[in-house]
Amino acid sequence: MAFSSQLLESAVNEFAKLPGIGKKTALRLVLHLLKQDTLTVDQFSEVVSRMRKEIRFCQRCNNVADADICSICSNSSRKHEIICVVENLRDVIAIEATQQFNGVYHVLGGVISPLDGIGPDQLNIESLLNRMQKEKVEEIIFALSPTIQGDTTIYYIQKKLKQEGVKITTIARGIAFGGELEYTDEMTLARSLQNRLPIESYVAGK
Amino acid sequence: MAFSSQLLESAVNEFAKLPGIGKKTALRLVLHLLKQDTLTVDQFSEVVSRMRKEIRFCQRCNNVADADICSICSNSSRKHEIICVVENLRDVIAIEATQQFNGVYHVLGGVISPLDGIGPDQLNIESLLNRMQKEKVEEIIFALSPTIQGDTTIYYIQKKLKQEGVKITTIARGIAFGGELEYTDEMTLARSLQNRLPIESYVAGK
Repeated sequence: MAFSSQLLESAVNEFAKLPGIGKKTALRLVLHLLKQDTLTVDQFSEVVSRMRKEIRFCQRCNNVADADICSICSNSSRKHEIICVVENLRDVIAIEATQQFNGVYHVLGGVISPLDGIGPDQLNIESLLNRMQKEKVEEIIFALSPTIQGDTTIYYIQKKLKQEGVKITTIARGIAFGGELEYTDEMTLARSLQNRLPIESYVAGK
Repeated sequence: MAFSSQLLESAVNEFAKLPGIGKKTALRLVLHLLKQDTLTVDQFSEVVSRMRKEIRFCQRCNNVADADICSICSNSSRKHEIICVVENLRDVIAIEATQQFNGVYHVLGGVISPLDGIGPDQLNIESLLNRMQKEKVEEIIFALSPTIQGDTTIYYIQKKLKQEGVKITTIARGIAFGGELEYTDEMTLARSLQNRLPIESYVAGK
């Protein structure tokens, strides 16, 4: 693209560095900002820059936080005995959106994936084991993606946890709501058969 | 969406204000920035804020510029006798990308559209007429979108220009490259029949 303004060009280039944003979309976003008043654009850039500088990671669960401890970990009305282990921050947001979980989290920062060079040491597993010893934990819920890497991670951590004697669970895997049986892959279908539920608990929504 | 960090939430909200960016995409962009180092993010916000503050509009053609006169208008190797009239800045970029035009531009800032409350006074038509008197103009090329509003605008300006005695042209309208004849709308097909070209000029690409 040929621009008659260096300022415009650099702004477009900055936006085009973001994932999923091409040059054309970047131009559209920049032209939108160009139409806003200076204060609005200043606020935009100020908020983004502050976010990066001031955001911290919770010392307990590695979730994003505005302070040393995140708002979930510092919320005394949540059940601190139940820890939900997730891969990343986005999973925390997804589970929080269901409003069905009242425990706390532990963000691993990824899953064990030897092919990508990610071993247990690159993840926040040690800190999870430390929490187990310091805190009074009753249940660990694994909410990892149903992939080989996710399963490997669960297996690894579960081995390490065994001696602690806590309840270890994983979120149910099965056919999603609205999913069609015939298009479901074999692994999922096989698992959902193995883990079939008594109809009473299904109807009760438990 | 439920966030455990106010900083994160405000950044997501700022991105979600941009056109075509929903909350989920905004979160993806913010998490991407969160992974970058502070310098990179500072540069991003700095460039965006500077762009809005320092960008100016060319006093001659209303194109975006870093100075009083844009880089196209101040380029002495371009033909200043040929003015291409476009609706907006994006059209300038599109035409510049073809590398087929060596004249200068005049950005109207829109087209006449009474339904949207846009009359000739809201557009940079007066400044075009002033240019006609001050500069030695040989040709005006209208490169407006082929809509009723575009045609109205051409008609209006052309009426005003008539006394000046310059060549007035409009970019060719017809079937686009790769377009299929049977799916072309009647207006376009009718026009491309009316304005049929002698085969020599077609082959020569003139």
